[in-house]
Amino acid sequence: MTDPFIRTIHSTESDSHATGPLAGLRLAVKDLYDIAGIPTGAGNPRWLETHDIPTSDATAVARLKDAGATVVGKTITDELAWSLNGTNFHYGTPTNPAAPGRVPGGSSSGSASAVALEAADIALGTDTGGSVRVPASYCGLYGLRPTHGRIPMDGVVPLAPSLDTAGLFARDASTLRTAMDVLYQSANPTSPITTLIAPADIWDSVDPAVREALYPAIEGFGLEIDRTPLLDDIAELETARQTYATILAWEAWQQHGTWIEQARPEFGPGVGARFANAAKLTQDDVTPAEQHRERITTLIREHLTDGAVLAIPAAPGPAPKPDAPFDREALVRMTCLSGLSGAPAISLPLGRVDGLPVNLQVIAAHDTDESLLKLAEQS
Amino acid sequence: MTDPFIRTIHSTESDSHATGPLAGLRLAVKDLYDIAGIPTGAGNPRWLETHDIPTSDATAVARLKDAGATVVGKTITDELAWSLNGTNFHYGTPTNPAAPGRVPGGSSSGSASAVALEAADIALGTDTGGSVRVPASYCGLYGLRPTHGRIPMDGVVPLAPSLDTAGLFARDASTLRTAMDVLYQSANPTSPITTLIAPADIWDSVDPAVREALYPAIEGFGLEIDRTPLLDDIAELETARQTYATILAWEAWQQHGTWIEQARPEFGPGVGARFANAAKLTQDDVTPAEQHRERITTLIREHLTDGAVLAIPAAPGPAPKPDAPFDREALVRMTCLSGLSGAPAISLPLGRVDGLPVNLQVIAAHDTDESLLKLAEQS
Repeated sequence: MTDPFIRTIHSTESDSHATGPLAGLRLAVKDLYDIAGIPTGAGNPRWLETHDIPTSDATAVARLKDAGATVVGKTITDELAWSLNGTNFHYGTPTNPAAPGRVPGGSSSGSASAVALEAADIALGTDTGGSVRVPASYCGLYGLRPTHGRIPMDGVVPLAPSLDTAGLFARDASTLRTAMDVLYQSANPTSPITTLIAPADIWDSVDPAVREALYPAIEGFGLEIDRTPLLDDIAELETARQTYATILAWEAWQQHGTWIEQARPEFGPGVGARFANAAKLTQDDVTPAEQHRERITTLIREHLTDGAVLAIPAAPGPAPKPDAPFDREALVRMTCLSGLSGAPAISLPLGRVDGLPVNLQVIAAHDTDESLLKLAEQS
Repeated sequence: MTDPFIRTIHSTESDSHATGPLAGLRLAVKDLYDIAGIPTGAGNPRWLETHDIPTSDATAVARLKDAGATVVGKTITDELAWSLNGTNFHYGTPTNPAAPGRVPGGSSSGSASAVALEAADIALGTDTGGSVRVPASYCGLYGLRPTHGRIPMDGVVPLAPSLDTAGLFARDASTLRTAMDVLYQSANPTSPITTLIAPADIWDSVDPAVREALYPAIEGFGLEIDRTPLLDDIAELETARQTYATILAWEAWQQHGTWIEQARPEFGPGVGARFANAAKLTQDDVTPAEQHRERITTLIREHLTDGAVLAIPAAPGPAPKPDAPFDREALVRMTCLSGLSGAPAISLPLGRVDGLPVNLQVIAAHDTDESLLKLAEQS
């Protein structure tokens, strides 16, 4: 099953002549990544209008194509990747076949939707603060945010470079691992994961239905489980979220402020307000945020040693309806720890609440992405 | 909700500056219709490759645009419109949100899917032998096949000109009527429909579940119902289907034989076999078929007088699964009477079998399309 429209990339479903480890796999590409000869729209019509058509592929796209994947289309993204719900004001809300009538999650909305719809086998997204992990959760897919910096980001529209990563969706862990091996080019050796840190403070902060849905999955790995609270006070998680939000907004304005002032794009209500607020930030806001980020990073790194990983929800609940109030803060509290620290995180479709998917998020030590992918295969 | 991919037409969801009776309506266009500057692919990659990009809009597209509709994308079609199930070998099977996991029907598969998905409000299809009426039934939409010849077919890839018509999908009867009024340009006066001919022989030839699903709808109009058998022997319906198939194949080869021999396109299995058989037809096959067509046309015309219309199923059952055996013959027996006679027919989403849509088809006298659309509004 696929989407009804003819795509900018008028390719056939898969290239039967391709060779390589990804031969036969259909690849959907978030419309933040350059593909030679095809415009990059970044989810905003004014961006599309004011940028030249790229003449070369982003490295991440090129690696997957070189390994035999067939690009079947570029996918809808939230505007400049700055949202988590996947309701693009200009281009609509991609369908979520795993939760009909509900949002797919964002900002890699179309990539998640395409894989869930089986219109693609793998899809490139980006994850700044959850943009792969959240739509993977809402659509019931496997999604990986790699260690920050491991996948080159050339040819990808940035949002906040110190947080931005590539990311990939698949319907099964084995396909995800095969495609990520290609993206990494050189694999790190895996080391056994022995302990799942499932901190009581974070788990107690979400809906009991989410706990009930995901606790069995945690236990199912057969590893040691450590439920010691992560923070002195759960309120620190909200502070971490604010720190994340400040750094993101500051970097986003550094990246796009000049363009916004010159090109005067029309934005949907949420992202427009966020850019307007970003424009007002000063170095006095950012310095304490950066200091706090250091402390969070240290805390996370100290925990993720000796085979321990952090297992928390990928989202505080299943996909909301498009017109429901969207609790962005609750969502970012679940996703910001990986973003702030740069640690890799995987979103695993291991639970359901009222029949709708909700994923487990596992965060691991820097550069141990391969161990995380191996763990996913055991889930 | 919309499809996940970026479309060849990179337009925003609807044009808020548009004026006219269709202002605010999003229009999807089957990829048989020319749109200036956008390639027409007709569902086959080789067709796309071997044809120039059109420099003007098909008249049907232009009329809808001039009336304020915003084109939001071109949609997947079965190859050269010669199929009824909507599983394009090259480009995939558009999703059917009304019957998840099942085919959308074809050949106007993407147009039906786009409207059902609420990614468009109206969509242009074509109907040679059911290509609007069948996907409307499988996707639970309103769909009209106009009187043959009433809508100009310039700028539309032909299949069999004596059978080909434009056609339109909508989610409600009132939108369908408004948009068809635009396509007709000058409306015919309506005359009251007084009798639904629901011939026992045709209704007895379909699954009892379809009868049970649609009889209440027929009765719901509050009109006189005439259940007199239409044919001396129900086997004549199969003869009509064969006549239809012969004429279609003959004309299709007249249209496309030279291109097929020169361009050597790859076709999916069904359509490839049909073109191969079409190539073998001779005038000796066609002459008796044309004579039989005359008799069928006379029969239909004689019944459709004095306010009487023919009410039969739009399809013998709900949408099948993509891998299920596809009983094309049973389907064409329901659709060929309108095609052969050139009479207008509407597909009305008035029934469900096992929760899946199945439509009522109402066929009316030539050039009384407006009366049919008015009847739909009373359904």
